Amino acid sequence: MRAFNFSAGPAAMPLEVLELAAQEMTNWHDCGMGVMEMSHRGREFISIYEQTHQDLKDLLAVPDHFKILFMQGGGIAENAVVPMNLSRGGSVDFVISGSWSQKSFVEAQKYCQVQAAASAESDGFHHLPEPSTWRLNPQASYVHLCTNETIHGVECHDIPDLKALGVDTPLVIDFSSHVLAHPVDWRRVGLAFAGAQKNIGPAGLTLVIVREDLLGQALAICPSAFNYALVAKHDSMFNTPPTYSIYMAGLVMQWLKRQTEDDLSGVLAIQARNQKKAQLLYNAIDQSSFYENRVAKSSRSVMNVPFYLHDESLNERFLQGAKAAGLLQLKGHKSVGGMRASIYNAMPLEGVQALVSFMQEFERTAA
Amino acid sequence: MRAFNFSAGPAAMPLEVLELAAQEMTNWHDCGMGVMEMSHRGREFISIYEQTHQDLKDLLAVPDHFKILFMQGGGIAENAVVPMNLSRGGSVDFVISGSWSQKSFVEAQKYCQVQAAASAESDGFHHLPEPSTWRLNPQASYVHLCTNETIHGVECHDIPDLKALGVDTPLVIDFSSHVLAHPVDWRRVGLAFAGAQKNIGPAGLTLVIVREDLLGQALAICPSAFNYALVAKHDSMFNTPPTYSIYMAGLVMQWLKRQTEDDLSGVLAIQARNQKKAQLLYNAIDQSSFYENRVAKSSRSVMNVPFYLHDESLNERFLQGAKAAGLLQLKGHKSVGGMRASIYNAMPLEGVQALVSFMQEFERTAA
Repeated sequence: MRAFNFSAGPAAMPLEVLELAAQEMTNWHDCGMGVMEMSHRGREFISIYEQTHQDLKDLLAVPDHFKILFMQGGGIAENAVVPMNLSRGGSVDFVISGSWSQKSFVEAQKYCQVQAAASAESDGFHHLPEPSTWRLNPQASYVHLCTNETIHGVECHDIPDLKALGVDTPLVIDFSSHVLAHPVDWRRVGLAFAGAQKNIGPAGLTLVIVREDLLGQALAICPSAFNYALVAKHDSMFNTPPTYSIYMAGLVMQWLKRQTEDDLSGVLAIQARNQKKAQLLYNAIDQSSFYENRVAKSSRSVMNVPFYLHDESLNERFLQGAKAAGLLQLKGHKSVGGMRASIYNAMPLEGVQALVSFMQEFERTAA
Repeated sequence: MRAFNFSAGPAAMPLEVLELAAQEMTNWHDCGMGVMEMSHRGREFISIYEQTHQDLKDLLAVPDHFKILFMQGGGIAENAVVPMNLSRGGSVDFVISGSWSQKSFVEAQKYCQVQAAASAESDGFHHLPEPSTWRLNPQASYVHLCTNETIHGVECHDIPDLKALGVDTPLVIDFSSHVLAHPVDWRRVGLAFAGAQKNIGPAGLTLVIVREDLLGQALAICPSAFNYALVAKHDSMFNTPPTYSIYMAGLVMQWLKRQTEDDLSGVLAIQARNQKKAQLLYNAIDQSSFYENRVAKSSRSVMNVPFYLHDESLNERFLQGAKAAGLLQLKGHKSVGGMRASIYNAMPLEGVQALVSFMQEFERTAA
């Protein structure tokens, strides 16, 4: 029996996507081979690539002056790849709002000067630093912001307008763990990147969406396979792309397009559903004196909900009970402990309802 | 109906591997989730990783003082990653035996001095330069050799012993397109790398097998995600690995272990079968005055068999007829033209027999 899987990533996929992939595994559309076996240069795979590219462009309303790149290496590779492509060896501003932006900050030091424009470290990363307080360097090559901190459960719900903050530098967002969960205001973004393994598809695929005018400035030591201009010029086929992962991402895009909620469809529908899911879970935590979420309410993530049992000696029993109830991978990241429920696009409302019921029952019987 | 798929990569997978993957897609071993959905840190995926690692180590008899790394970016990324890790900014020798080693040679120039120790370019890459003729620099950080040139169909059948050639430098082999097709003499190898999409599994996974004493010398600008020492220290989980591709590779390893041929098993069995397949096809070409293979007999690849029709005006008809006969992706690489049959491990003897029958029939009716 399928369980409800709250993994932070790689994460649950829509069941109907997996079922279709299984059906098509040995013979895609009666072409005599499975998708994994297709040449990336053949007409069959090119049609899959083009459809996936178009669906992603549609779903996120990506303007024509942005390039959509399918790459490899995940967010951690991008921590080096972004500064190799955009820093020009100059200075870069970082907003440090959790573990991921901190990692990005450290890695970038290999390629450029870095400055912490803001940091929430002193409060244990429990809020997103207010944009009006960021100390922005007008000469910076770009500003780096992780718009959803997967480990700390801190989300930026409104991409800041750097021009309104007085600087004319491109904003780079790491939106790995909430990509495709809501629309994006591309007027405020220079580059967005995401590892696929939360809301897009299998681990190993990396999505980069970059404004064309930022291409072509890579450092000489940037590997060709990670040079955005080269990757863009070759439609993500400079090296062999992760073809099967692109296909799976394509099935997820088609699933997203079919979603409806409250007369909405596509990304707006999934956004509405995600808000219901998050509200249900945060309300249950807030109304309890047994569980606790420590993130400032305005910064709480719709995708990753870390929470603690006040009595942490019950953690192991909680996890075992959850597993027995078909609720998997709820253990918090080792760096922060406690629990974490990742409730990405593919998690149905019923999964969150089952979690809340279990939490209430556990509280009742453990007390 | 499944066809015989001669793609150079991504390439045919064993049917029973695909069928098992389809069966397990939504619920692996009744754990409630599919492999794509598992946390890479969870016990389920760790068990898959460990089994795959062990099976690969067994199949290729990798000694304990080598590290097996599962990475991303393919061979083209490795063209930068290898010199970033091993060159120490010094000088590197390249044997240029075809398109792939030529690409490696060009990319490495970003990170080190390069020297062509030998080149077969003047004869159109129709043979592997004889090791005794290589002009090796005793001070080189390493020697790079592509042991199977996928495009030109040139294979090195016996890894050279650099010590016997008078230098004590590590040999780096790009064995992407014939990995797991035969045993490897690890005494002669410092590092071997391979994109997965020929004989291992889905595109996007990259295999690196490296002698431990070569770790820890990466250039400062090497991205952490591609620093072999860091990747080795974290058992290929410094960044989220391409989990599903590792699982598929694991199923391929188990399939390989089950293979038998002429009282042989595993890699020796597949080697014997591969030799029969290649012999059948090369014999058919050599005995015909209609088809031609231009590679020196001692350098012919067991995996990639490029061939030409003497009358190239028949190329399109040949390809259409082949497709109608269920023989796919036989078009040669655009840089060399003609035809190419890639007959990797997963291609059964029956596939080569069907190709030879078609070729003979086409010759008979086209003449």
